[in-house]
Amino acid sequence: MTPTRPEHDLLGTRPVPTDAYWGIHTLRATENFPITGTPISAYPHLINALAAVKEAAALANEELGLLAPPKAAAIVAACREIRSGKLHDQFVVDVIQGGAGTSTNMNANEVVANRALELLGHAKGEYHHLHPNEDVNLGQSTNDVYPTAVKIATVFAVRGLLKAMAVLQDAFARKAVEFRDVLKMGRTQLQDAVPMTLGQEFSTFAVMIEEDRSRLAEAVELIHEINLGATAIGTGLNAPAGYAEAARRHLAAITGLSLVTAANLVEATQDCGAFVQMSGVLKRIAVKLSKSCNDLRLLSSGPRAGLGEINLPPVQAGSSIMPGKVNPVIPEVVNQVAFEVIGNDVAITMAAEAGQLQLNAFEPIILHSLSESITHLERACVTLAERCVDGITANTDRLRATVEDSIGLVTALNPHIGYTAATDIAKEALATGRGVAELVLEKGLLPADRLAALLRPEVLAGSTTQREDAPKAQYRS
Amino acid sequence: MTPTRPEHDLLGTRPVPTDAYWGIHTLRATENFPITGTPISAYPHLINALAAVKEAAALANEELGLLAPPKAAAIVAACREIRSGKLHDQFVVDVIQGGAGTSTNMNANEVVANRALELLGHAKGEYHHLHPNEDVNLGQSTNDVYPTAVKIATVFAVRGLLKAMAVLQDAFARKAVEFRDVLKMGRTQLQDAVPMTLGQEFSTFAVMIEEDRSRLAEAVELIHEINLGATAIGTGLNAPAGYAEAARRHLAAITGLSLVTAANLVEATQDCGAFVQMSGVLKRIAVKLSKSCNDLRLLSSGPRAGLGEINLPPVQAGSSIMPGKVNPVIPEVVNQVAFEVIGNDVAITMAAEAGQLQLNAFEPIILHSLSESITHLERACVTLAERCVDGITANTDRLRATVEDSIGLVTALNPHIGYTAATDIAKEALATGRGVAELVLEKGLLPADRLAALLRPEVLAGSTTQREDAPKAQYRS
Amino acid sequence: MTPTRPEHDLLGTRPVPTDAYWGIHTLRATENFPITGTPISAYPHLINALAAVKEAAALANEELGLLAPPKAAAIVAACREIRSGKLHDQFVVDVIQGGAGTSTNMNANEVVANRALELLGHAKGEYHHLHPNEDVNLGQSTNDVYPTAVKIATVFAVRGLLKAMAVLQDAFARKAVEFRDVLKMGRTQLQDAVPMTLGQEFSTFAVMIEEDRSRLAEAVELIHEINLGATAIGTGLNAPAGYAEAARRHLAAITGLSLVTAANLVEATQDCGAFVQMSGVLKRIAVKLSKSCNDLRLLSSGPRAGLGEINLPPVQAGSSIMPGKVNPVIPEVVNQVAFEVIGNDVAITMAAEAGQLQLNAFEPIILHSLSESITHLERACVTLAERCVDGITANTDRLRATVEDSIGLVTALNPHIGYTAATDIAKEALATGRGVAELVLEKGLLPADRLAALLRPEVLAGSTTQREDAPKAQYRS
Amino acid sequence: MTPTRPEHDLLGTRPVPTDAYWGIHTLRATENFPITGTPISAYPHLINALAAVKEAAALANEELGLLAPPKAAAIVAACREIRSGKLHDQFVVDVIQGGAGTSTNMNANEVVANRALELLGHAKGEYHHLHPNEDVNLGQSTNDVYPTAVKIATVFAVRGLLKAMAVLQDAFARKAVEFRDVLKMGRTQLQDAVPMTLGQEFSTFAVMIEEDRSRLAEAVELIHEINLGATAIGTGLNAPAGYAEAARRHLAAITGLSLVTAANLVEATQDCGAFVQMSGVLKRIAVKLSKSCNDLRLLSSGPRAGLGEINLPPVQAGSSIMPGKVNPVIPEVVNQVAFEVIGNDVAITMAAEAGQLQLNAFEPIILHSLSESITHLERACVTLAERCVDGITANTDRLRATVEDSIGLVTALNPHIGYTAATDIAKEALATGRGVAELVLEKGLLPADRLAALLRPEVLAGSTTQREDAPKAQYRS
Repeated sequence: MTPTRPEHDLLGTRPVPTDAYWGIHTLRATENFPITGTPISAYPHLINALAAVKEAAALANEELGLLAPPKAAAIVAACREIRSGKLHDQFVVDVIQGGAGTSTNMNANEVVANRALELLGHAKGEYHHLHPNEDVNLGQSTNDVYPTAVKIATVFAVRGLLKAMAVLQDAFARKAVEFRDVLKMGRTQLQDAVPMTLGQEFSTFAVMIEEDRSRLAEAVELIHEINLGATAIGTGLNAPAGYAEAARRHLAAITGLSLVTAANLVEATQDCGAFVQMSGVLKRIAVKLSKSCNDLRLLSSGPRAGLGEINLPPVQAGSSIMPGKVNPVIPEVVNQVAFEVIGNDVAITMAAEAGQLQLNAFEPIILHSLSESITHLERACVTLAERCVDGITANTDRLRATVEDSIGLVTALNPHIGYTAATDIAKEALATGRGVAELVLEKGLLPADRLAALLRPEVLAGSTTQREDAPKAQYRS
Repeated sequence: MTPTRPEHDLLGTRPVPTDAYWGIHTLRATENFPITGTPISAYPHLINALAAVKEAAALANEELGLLAPPKAAAIVAACREIRSGKLHDQFVVDVIQGGAGTSTNMNANEVVANRALELLGHAKGEYHHLHPNEDVNLGQSTNDVYPTAVKIATVFAVRGLLKAMAVLQDAFARKAVEFRDVLKMGRTQLQDAVPMTLGQEFSTFAVMIEEDRSRLAEAVELIHEINLGATAIGTGLNAPAGYAEAARRHLAAITGLSLVTAANLVEATQDCGAFVQMSGVLKRIAVKLSKSCNDLRLLSSGPRAGLGEINLPPVQAGSSIMPGKVNPVIPEVVNQVAFEVIGNDVAITMAAEAGQLQLNAFEPIILHSLSESITHLERACVTLAERCVDGITANTDRLRATVEDSIGLVTALNPHIGYTAATDIAKEALATGRGVAELVLEKGLLPADRLAALLRPEVLAGSTTQREDAPKAQYRS
Repeated sequence: MTPTRPEHDLLGTRPVPTDAYWGIHTLRATENFPITGTPISAYPHLINALAAVKEAAALANEELGLLAPPKAAAIVAACREIRSGKLHDQFVVDVIQGGAGTSTNMNANEVVANRALELLGHAKGEYHHLHPNEDVNLGQSTNDVYPTAVKIATVFAVRGLLKAMAVLQDAFARKAVEFRDVLKMGRTQLQDAVPMTLGQEFSTFAVMIEEDRSRLAEAVELIHEINLGATAIGTGLNAPAGYAEAARRHLAAITGLSLVTAANLVEATQDCGAFVQMSGVLKRIAVKLSKSCNDLRLLSSGPRAGLGEINLPPVQAGSSIMPGKVNPVIPEVVNQVAFEVIGNDVAITMAAEAGQLQLNAFEPIILHSLSESITHLERACVTLAERCVDGITANTDRLRATVEDSIGLVTALNPHIGYTAATDIAKEALATGRGVAELVLEKGLLPADRLAALLRPEVLAGSTTQREDAPKAQYRS
Repeated sequence: MTPTRPEHDLLGTRPVPTDAYWGIHTLRATENFPITGTPISAYPHLINALAAVKEAAALANEELGLLAPPKAAAIVAACREIRSGKLHDQFVVDVIQGGAGTSTNMNANEVVANRALELLGHAKGEYHHLHPNEDVNLGQSTNDVYPTAVKIATVFAVRGLLKAMAVLQDAFARKAVEFRDVLKMGRTQLQDAVPMTLGQEFSTFAVMIEEDRSRLAEAVELIHEINLGATAIGTGLNAPAGYAEAARRHLAAITGLSLVTAANLVEATQDCGAFVQMSGVLKRIAVKLSKSCNDLRLLSSGPRAGLGEINLPPVQAGSSIMPGKVNPVIPEVVNQVAFEVIGNDVAITMAAEAGQLQLNAFEPIILHSLSESITHLERACVTLAERCVDGITANTDRLRATVEDSIGLVTALNPHIGYTAATDIAKEALATGRGVAELVLEKGLLPADRLAALLRPEVLAGSTTQREDAPKAQYRS
């Protein structure tokens, strides 16, 4: 039988395993929330952020003369151990939990207190020497600790995502250079439109990610505003004068982040707007990643009855029944992560909307969904870069043939022969299967050399058309 | 160093740990999809369903003379071990994966094959004796195996949810009986309306769940239609005549489910409609669970500055700063599960919409989201019943006082004094703080005994008003 | 200046245009809810349903001796005028409104009352002869009238949608017959898979709609359960004994619908589950319509650099700059309706979840979103059938060529040469550009006649493979 | 019979009403897209923006010598008429349309051309004098005109919303001042927490809106980046050198907006990220507006059996059956707008994700949903300010009583008597119904004067607690 120590709370006394750094509050929470089976230790950024907050609070309390230096030192030491990766397995409450994060905060208070007790030479559970609530949580409330920790955790998680997005952007950008001279047909509404280069197409994928990185970097700035010192509802009850600023200063130093305290703590304590905004940006990223993956799957469709413009590197056998089939499994998994992120945004939206009066009780699902979205997007970006984009090759000849064969070429002649004549050429080309150039020459609409000049690839795919041949007064009057 | 055996596929040769029942296809998949870190073994219903399908296919193949009896026997034996709970740890591919479930199917083929090889006295990896694709997957494709297994897994998961919902319904129903005589004010738009009983209110919670159970039971019926025998795209290529029916028959026997084969296998192979429908019903359940939890939280608000009509049993201390505070953490966690389910429905919707041509490549996220929704709802229902509803008590006196004090009583007088006069009484009561009965008597609108009869609780809260006092020709002419 | 009559309510007296059939409650509502600018008359089914409810209530009240026959007759006559399409322009409150539909109910009460007054020879506004609340609304509450009317309106709207879906199903089914012999490559995950017919592909579109029609027909059944007689919160306060049943009977007769009264009126009055379910089914329809349109756009991509398998009929010039370009605009508009329906489902979900205690105050947005979804889907289905599907043609030669050229043919040889050998053939075909049959013969894997038999189109695309050539004991041992 | 003129296009000849400024392309579009019945003229900002783009293009084309000055002048004059509000009724294509906005652009080209023709002394339809495509659309494509116009329209629409939000913010801020001394209980998780002022609560509503305005102002900046000059796919085919810059310059001058041309036009032409971001911010606004309205409805619940803390001004009678009932209809309508906006965000997200290759064909539904969200939010904000917030009053005495009666007061004593002792006091107060101060004195935990000082309202609700009484070394050791 596991040896236990007794602990008590508002509801009575319960045995807690002697070895456990967590205590009775954590015990009850694990019993109350048997939902996902995933403990909060699954989010190491959160555990580290909680430890950082507890450390900063202890230093502020010591500075204000509210916490005896030996206690403060023990708490700080315990927090540093946690931030170095230790004791994470003691953070056992479920990621989906009621109580606005109270159980997560209590779990942190208990682990820090018990480890600090050990460091002070006491046994775990001897809370009269150092108490989870009265010392570790001194001057704090779940309602300022938890959102602050979630924000710090999110900042660090987002850094990982930004880096992963940069990896993917670079992969696309390298392909944009590699494919810069590969002429192909551009398509609008899936119909042949006008020529472009495959390099332009891949450049687009890179630019999309670059823009999204900028948006994400902006959104993460909003997350640097914290409400530490707000205590229960933002009025700062029980937080002494100077506490909020001291705690912020220490927390900024510990985390290396430019944290600021919200101007209106009552508002900041109940407001989940920054998380909704962050999730909205993650959704934007998901939307565009998914669109890019849709394109990759479409461009690589085939090998024979599809577009067959590019080849994705094979990473596994595609089918249990169709020999030799290789599927675009990497873009497919990224699509699915995107769908998950978009779904998570709805969950976050509903949770944020459901906040009432001075607090949003549903921040745990916000944290859970945000963390999942960020982490999965990070892994999806790296996987897409390394297992797919890096190995993409182009079917250059096939691509060029589609341009030469194309009816869309006629668009380039539009300013020279007029929309109406061009429409007739297009119609005839489609009906007869003949080429546009051939028909233009046959009808004497343009001289051969002029036509050839107009259809030069550089002109067709140029990001701005060179118009040396366009005399000043060529308008039709 | 871990000892390994070499395995090869389309892409080359790779070492696989000698101990592993999975093989090279699984190995590549784990490398290709490092997304969630959660292996498919997290869904035991799915693993069991895959084993059931493999077992049924082997029996059908044996019956049709396509698989030698010793091989069939070994496959069947391996599948039964898996269905008894063994080897689940060998199902290691990520729950979010590209490839339409191919990696999950390959993982199953490899585990079954290697265990069957052992049973036949061979070493793992000696596929020339019994091959994952050529024998275990004989006559099958991921595209019929995977949806079939997902459906069977969903049927069993839903059974668990139905049972949990019944537990919750019973808990509410017991309270409905307990509170049947507790008179209280009903509210519409959060404004005092007319009297009812607390029993009626709790009865509503019970009835909502009962209706949802009916809808869920209907939706799960649609999931009994499978496409086994469709092979790659529903044309049944490589599945011999009689195979689909034989496999279905064995699968029905193994699972005990009334499975039917879809009339149009091409359609069935690409269609995710039944999953969308199932998720829509789960969303409905989530919506109403969330509404009921919102009500429980509202009715128990206080203890002094809220409605204070009922008391939820305390299950943990509510606050790290506010002593004695007890929060409605159980309804809160249920609300969050509801938000998650609603978000999952969006993910499932997008995944279903993204199917293309003959297959939906995104079934893994559909499975993942559905499983999560079902499992979490099941746990939420039981938790709500056992840790909250069972212990709810009513503040009977306070409730009755709100009725006696209420302006809403005037509604009951409406047919007797008219809407216009009643409006004036209501207005005056609100402005002066006086009681409705008092004002009616003062103005001589009704005699005292008639008034008392009209305001009897049984009349007010009756589900149909007793109108013995309503003479046939009392209309105003 | 518009001549006016004075009307008064709880808040005071206001001039109402003499010509208006609506009164002061409607006037205030139009001022209070200036949101969309769309009046409820945009939903004729709703206006007719409101009139039907008022008519049924008047008949029930007369029957129970609560309403004088001349008044009842006038109300009934006014309602019939409305149901014949008259006075709809008098229903002027905004489709998005606060108050749980009270303003819509009041608008109906006032229009019916004023028209009835005219029929009785009185002037509009002379409510002492016949009163909007005391006579027209007798025994009713918005909280039973409004949901009942919304349900009836929805039933009729859904009938229109079911019919439109049948039109679309028939259009697809006709094409399935027309294309029954057109052989093509099936695709999974956008990669060439195994052969099928274009008829099978179009048959799938038809079957999907057929299934969705069944689901919709089931969901509409749930909408036949009404709560008329519940009055304010379901306790039936002020509704005399027998009223609920009499009103239901009259309403069923008037509408021709098999309406039933909910068993638990308290529950029925607050529950929006049937609307959530209905919206979920509409979402399912949207998902599959969108998927089908995605396929149509993909299959018709080109004309030269796309799949080019089918041709959609041109319905307008496609581009303001690219002459001759014709775009798949009809599927595109259907896709957009699908996105709208899916978005509406989220709005409906949130509105349903937000209901509190004895009423859901947000039914107006539920009605609005549901009506929009149903109506737009109806128009989208008919448009897709008539302006697109009916005119689709197949590029038969191109389609057959993709089969003959295909590597996917090797799958059919799988049972005969084994998965491993087949994989090697596929790999070599892809690398060299050579044909599968050619390579099989060259390697002597199968004799020419056997090979030819295996590759017959009927075999390849058969919904069950004919296996006359499969001897009983052909398994590899 | 309406007199007509014949017009022709790719598909043939059709009669167009002689009076119509629109032509054959518009005619076909109205037939092809009979979805909502709402013409694009419902969005005047869009019509004006289209005219601005056409005007800018004409000026750029004239400047580059591509358009004869008389034609340019006529086009410019026609556009200015439109921007002054004329001819809007000629913009008749449906707001939901296929074709990526081509029909909207064509409608604009035709109206501008026909009005310009008239100004030049020609009859409508005499396109050989001035052609919708060859002159009005010169150098343009729907694919650059449409997104550019949508962006400009959105900028102007958002300005209206920003102004409306400021109105609402001011209304809340005035109440924050008015209620600055009204003490009340703050609540977390709907449970009594610690004291605050009603002014702080209303200040929160104001600050939330202020923050959201900042986010909206940032998001609208992203919308100033346009792709005019991109033509079909961003390669600028047929747009002469200098055209993009000239057109941008003129458009900036005409609209007064600091427009910039996107650095990568291929990317800009297909990317809907800025719209997704904008919708995400609108969703954030909706979430917080909805939360604030939920609070207003909760705080004003009653009048007798609710919280009854504030009174919303009555704006209409609340019930057709319950006399004197006044409901929170204005917050309710705002809630519903919020749900609509959140649903629209999902529609926009799906539409953005569905873009393929070089274009997103689904921008019309994005425009439609965005416009609806912005417009409805604008009206909701003004309605909420003027018809609700401005008239809110506080029940000051009731509010103060809840504080004096509260158990939550004990939290303030926490630092002085310890969390454990405070918990015991709270427990006893709850069980016995006695007051916190009374129990503290009885147990001799604090002297009376100290207790009184700690419970002063200014201390309790102070945004930072004054801690003059907190000696430097008061920590418990």
